[in-house]
Amino acid sequence: MQHALSHTRADNFAAWYQDVVAEADMAEESGVRGCMIIRPWGYGVWQRMQELLDRRFRDTGHENCYFPLFIPLSFIAKEAEHVEGFAKEMAVVTHHRLKMIDGQLKPDPDAKLEEPLVVRPTSETVIGNAFSRWVRSHRDLPLLLNQWANVVRWEMRTRLFLRTTEFLWQEGHTAHATAEDAREETARMLEVYRSFAEDCLAMPVVAGEKPPHERFPGADNTYSIEAMMQDGKALQAGTAHYLGTNFAQAQNIRYQTEQGDLAYCHTTSWGVSTRLVGGVIMTHGDDDGLRLPPVIAPRQVVLVPMLRDKPEDAEVLAYCDQLAAELNRLSVFGEPVRALVDRKGGRSTDKRWGWIKRGVPVICDIGARDVANGNVSYIRRDRLRTGEKVGSQMLAKAAFIAQAAVLLQDIQSSLHTQARERMLSNIRSDITTLEGLSEHFSSGPDNGAKADDENDAFRGWVLVPWARPQGADMEKVEQQLKALKLTVRNAPLAQESAAGRTCLFTGQRAIEYVLVGRTY
Amino acid sequence: MQHALSHTRADNFAAWYQDVVAEADMAEESGVRGCMIIRPWGYGVWQRMQELLDRRFRDTGHENCYFPLFIPLSFIAKEAEHVEGFAKEMAVVTHHRLKMIDGQLKPDPDAKLEEPLVVRPTSETVIGNAFSRWVRSHRDLPLLLNQWANVVRWEMRTRLFLRTTEFLWQEGHTAHATAEDAREETARMLEVYRSFAEDCLAMPVVAGEKPPHERFPGADNTYSIEAMMQDGKALQAGTAHYLGTNFAQAQNIRYQTEQGDLAYCHTTSWGVSTRLVGGVIMTHGDDDGLRLPPVIAPRQVVLVPMLRDKPEDAEVLAYCDQLAAELNRLSVFGEPVRALVDRKGGRSTDKRWGWIKRGVPVICDIGARDVANGNVSYIRRDRLRTGEKVGSQMLAKAAFIAQAAVLLQDIQSSLHTQARERMLSNIRSDITTLEGLSEHFSSGPDNGAKADDENDAFRGWVLVPWARPQGADMEKVEQQLKALKLTVRNAPLAQESAAGRTCLFTGQRAIEYVLVGRTY
Repeated sequence: MQHALSHTRADNFAAWYQDVVAEADMAEESGVRGCMIIRPWGYGVWQRMQELLDRRFRDTGHENCYFPLFIPLSFIAKEAEHVEGFAKEMAVVTHHRLKMIDGQLKPDPDAKLEEPLVVRPTSETVIGNAFSRWVRSHRDLPLLLNQWANVVRWEMRTRLFLRTTEFLWQEGHTAHATAEDAREETARMLEVYRSFAEDCLAMPVVAGEKPPHERFPGADNTYSIEAMMQDGKALQAGTAHYLGTNFAQAQNIRYQTEQGDLAYCHTTSWGVSTRLVGGVIMTHGDDDGLRLPPVIAPRQVVLVPMLRDKPEDAEVLAYCDQLAAELNRLSVFGEPVRALVDRKGGRSTDKRWGWIKRGVPVICDIGARDVANGNVSYIRRDRLRTGEKVGSQMLAKAAFIAQAAVLLQDIQSSLHTQARERMLSNIRSDITTLEGLSEHFSSGPDNGAKADDENDAFRGWVLVPWARPQGADMEKVEQQLKALKLTVRNAPLAQESAAGRTCLFTGQRAIEYVLVGRTY
Repeated sequence: MQHALSHTRADNFAAWYQDVVAEADMAEESGVRGCMIIRPWGYGVWQRMQELLDRRFRDTGHENCYFPLFIPLSFIAKEAEHVEGFAKEMAVVTHHRLKMIDGQLKPDPDAKLEEPLVVRPTSETVIGNAFSRWVRSHRDLPLLLNQWANVVRWEMRTRLFLRTTEFLWQEGHTAHATAEDAREETARMLEVYRSFAEDCLAMPVVAGEKPPHERFPGADNTYSIEAMMQDGKALQAGTAHYLGTNFAQAQNIRYQTEQGDLAYCHTTSWGVSTRLVGGVIMTHGDDDGLRLPPVIAPRQVVLVPMLRDKPEDAEVLAYCDQLAAELNRLSVFGEPVRALVDRKGGRSTDKRWGWIKRGVPVICDIGARDVANGNVSYIRRDRLRTGEKVGSQMLAKAAFIAQAAVLLQDIQSSLHTQARERMLSNIRSDITTLEGLSEHFSSGPDNGAKADDENDAFRGWVLVPWARPQGADMEKVEQQLKALKLTVRNAPLAQESAAGRTCLFTGQRAIEYVLVGRTY
């Protein structure tokens, strides 16, 4: 069967992903190693995510602010002292001027900074420093802040949206009087992420707590939402950390209690990034390109007028304009419908395929015959093909308008259902031994010659009983996981009792279940 | 008279500005030289500006995208060759890792970048590079892009919002087939800025063209909007550049015409920044703090419940909540009203003064007596005082709700009218000689001992006939301007004919009028 992309998911998932990113005009390499250019369609999806999340952050009492891009090396050094597992791959600014030297533009040796500046990899240090100045009394708490920002982490192997040196994200930072308040906040924001992923991105996720060895350095507890990609790997799609008083102690964030004592604040942080765009692609894309859930599609309905350089063209355009105007007066998901008439030049069939690859939920081809009969021919992107053929449907214009909102809702929920069923049917919970796990994840001997293909085959996740091993036990488990190229994703919040089960790895009494799988 | 701020505009305008920024919780120094922390109230104002501008950019056909923070030194070097007046004060990244060396965290010498990266001061080079790949045919044009981003320009003397090393802005970049199209685009975006400043910020501006010596390096024409601050100085509040084919030639941005030839694109760029927040402060602030135009106020109405730790408190809070809910169901300026009940702890009089200093347009004090009588007591922030007294008004609740939208509209237009009258009455056009100009701008001899105070006194702008001097003539004019600490702001687009007038500086036949004044 002929598809719009040159690679299929089944043949080469990684190449297919790159095809979608390129063909859907989502992003491209920039020439600066590891930094991407987010193209308008990709940025449009991110901007939709921002709008929807920003509203949810505001509705849960958070305020936006902005902290500097640069962090003094001394702040970072202080953190390094306190935090084990501190990552050092950061961009370092050492000069503040360029100069022509022997005909070449170079950093000016006379403009060397006394103290180097680090481009923020995350902002706990600089925000904690401000918190220590802003928090005085219990009346100042809780302090609920968020910022939308770019951050930089030097990465050796990068992939557009999934792992880039610079990426866009939001980072929430909050300070609370009690552990209970801060834990509630952490849970609240994890739930915001979970419901946002399910309801807006139509991306099913499992919310749960990370095991200690996967925690954010300095956190008491780290929680994540994990999504299953179409190659069976997990994508960590958002995290929320309860930081206890660790950062407050390192940065002296204290408040006067009602009784007049000084106490350390309990802090949290939480974030999601442009990585979510990669998650949407790998959750919903098919071999013809992207499929976008209507809630986050920059355009939900695109009308492609079929023009033939004939007098009827004006009528076709007028018909499209009127139809788009009527659609845009409708409301769906609590917002106005976003319809567009594609007036650009070029062949209408190329334009139609362009929108298919970009994943527009509903694409209408409007020709002179449709105008004459008062009809609308349209494609549902989530059900593009009937057999090999692209399946177009037709409705009278009034009926199409009357059903448009329901159609978009149906596409949203169909995409969600499809992804949810795939995820649920690919979580095994009947594997009880390490041998069973090994067999499940490796269908052949692990030799270096067999490249990633072998290991990329769809194997989903496995839910295993877990004893929360520690010390030497845990080191052994980490080695076992590493040998199988597996990681513990999280301990799902919603799970049955593991009472009476034994840990798959240690044979000790299980405390809970955890998900294991391959990951991005 | 006692005011809420420790400095008044008349006594020390610069200190007054700092007071407002601090007392209104707009921003503060970060500890990183020249970089600011934008606090929630300041960021809220900027986010309102973003929302309003973003809508206008979209309505004029632009799409958002995102380009990398880092620019390879080679891109910058190429620009430096082409662009006279190229500025070299930029942050330079030279390393990508930190390392503990002798117990100190330092840039790792083994992680030195082969090619240094520059933190973007603006993105013409990196966006032009992408344009050269994206533009193939006349069908790809116009290409209308915008990005919201942070940029860095190393500044020696910084002032919060007005001149900071890092600032937030938007930069529009467009490519067109013809000079006419690109010039139309430049004019369109200048008009977007002008109307946004007047209609949303209530900040009167003069739109006009910059003289050649004030152009953006590499531009054929630079246009600006100039606002008059309350100290009489000009603030360049936005710029739009017609770049001709200069950047297209340097970066090989070419397209195939309908006839099949290759032709260079005509490009434009345009931007406004967080500097606008400083402009709003210096346009509308008074000696009691900020006054915000309702269109950009994060909260338009704040209700302060006067609580007394008595049983009636619950009733007062319920009354406030209901009032806020009813207000939030109203619509003004095409959007829902933004009302808030301030439930924080603390004395209600302190809370009220906090909101006064933050410039909330309407502040309501709601006490038990108001609840009993069904009234609303409120303050109009734009007319805070009657004589020395803070003037509170009272209306029945139903009447207050019925009039709320009109009240907010009236505050918006009153602030605009007040600022507009101040600007217009402080543009002199009756000064015809250099001596007259000198006398107007320097009331005493210019000696070093007299600090900025003297030169900061309110003198407004002067509209002078201008011959567009060139070469040696212009060099002389530049010296004359410099001696008076003046700059040419722009040649207003709306102006009378200068026919028959002679240039104030050269005595040559005038071609147009230009505005001169002191500037930020």
